[in-house]
Amino acid sequence: MAPRKQQEIFDATLRLVAEKGYDGLTVEGVAERSGVNKTTIYRWWPSKAALLGAALVEADLLEFEPPDTGSLRGDLVALVEGIRRLLTEPPARDIAVAALGAAVRHPELDARRFFADRFARERQVFERAVRRGELKRSVDPMLVIDLLAGAVWVRAVFRGLPLTDDFANQAVSAVLGGVAT
Amino acid sequence: MAPRKQQEIFDATLRLVAEKGYDGLTVEGVAERSGVNKTTIYRWWPSKAALLGAALVEADLLEFEPPDTGSLRGDLVALVEGIRRLLTEPPARDIAVAALGAAVRHPELDARRFFADRFARERQVFERAVRRGELKRSVDPMLVIDLLAGAVWVRAVFRGLPLTDDFANQAVSAVLGGVAT
Repeated sequence: MAPRKQQEIFDATLRLVAEKGYDGLTVEGVAERSGVNKTTIYRWWPSKAALLGAALVEADLLEFEPPDTGSLRGDLVALVEGIRRLLTEPPARDIAVAALGAAVRHPELDARRFFADRFARERQVFERAVRRGELKRSVDPMLVIDLLAGAVWVRAVFRGLPLTDDFANQAVSAVLGGVAT
Repeated sequence: MAPRKQQEIFDATLRLVAEKGYDGLTVEGVAERSGVNKTTIYRWWPSKAALLGAALVEADLLEFEPPDTGSLRGDLVALVEGIRRLLTEPPARDIAVAALGAAVRHPELDARRFFADRFARERQVFERAVRRGELKRSVDPMLVIDLLAGAVWVRAVFRGLPLTDDFANQAVSAVLGGVAT
C-alpha cells in the first residue's frame, strides 16, 4: 500500500478512536472516513485492534523523535514535555487516553508494542548520558522512563490535575538529584 | 444503612466490576449479588458511577493503611509494595485495573476521589520524613507519590511486564538518591 494511503488510514483510525472511543471504532468507520475499501483494510490489518496498534506506532500524527539537547537533564525535560503534550493537548490527548485506557480492558489491543517502540528510541538518550558520565551505571533506563511517564499519567489523567509549567523541571530534578536530604 | 450491609454492597460492586468490567456493572447486578433491594441501593447511591466511586474509597476489600516503618525509605518501599499488590494480585488487580481504566473514559466515575483519599493518608509519611529531616524541603510529596505509583502502573499495566522482587527498592532508591552521577 502506498505510504500516503496508509497514513490516511492511520489518521482516520486515530481520529475515530479519539471521537468515539475504542468501542465506537470500527473498520467500517475507518473505511468510510479514509475512502479506502473495507476489504483492503482487512487484508493489511486483520482486526480493529491490529489496525489501532499499528496506527499508534506508525502514524505521523503521533510521531516521536527522541530529543538530543546535549545533556541528560535537557533530554529528560524534553521527553517529559513531549509526554505532557501527548496526554494533555488535543488531538493527541484524546487518542492516547482512549487507546491506552482501552488497552487495559482489551489485551488484544497491544499497548506493549507502543511502549516498546518508544523505549527502543528513548534508549539513545541514556546511552549518550552514560558516555557523558551523567548517569549512575546501576540505573535501569526503563525505570527512569516509567517514573517520569507514570507521573505525568497519574497527575494528568487519574488525578485530573493541571500540570504546571514547571512540572517537567520538578519531576526531572527529583529523579536526577533525588528527594532525600 | 448498617455498616455490614454497606460492605456487602461494596464487595458485590467491586467483584462485579472485576468480573464484567465497568460496562457490565449494573446496580441490578449488585442488588442481586448482595441481596439488597435495588431501590434501597439507588436511595444511597444515585448511579453505578457513584456506587463504584464510594466502593473504591470505602470498601474493606481495598483498605489502605499508610505504613509507619520509622524511615522514609521503609515507608516508601512499603507504599510501592502496596501499589504493586493492588495492580498485580487478584482480586485487587482486576478491580483496580477495570475501575481506573474505566475512569479514563467515564469522567462521571470519579477516580480523583480515590487518589485524593489515598493522598490525604499518604501525606503523614512525608510529614514524619520532614520532621526527621529526611526529605528536601523543596520537594512536593504528591510528586513523589506520582513518580512511584506511575512507574508501577506503566510497568505492570501498560508494558505488561512482571515486577521483579527488587522493583520497589530500585524505584525508591532512584527517587530518594537520584539517578545522576
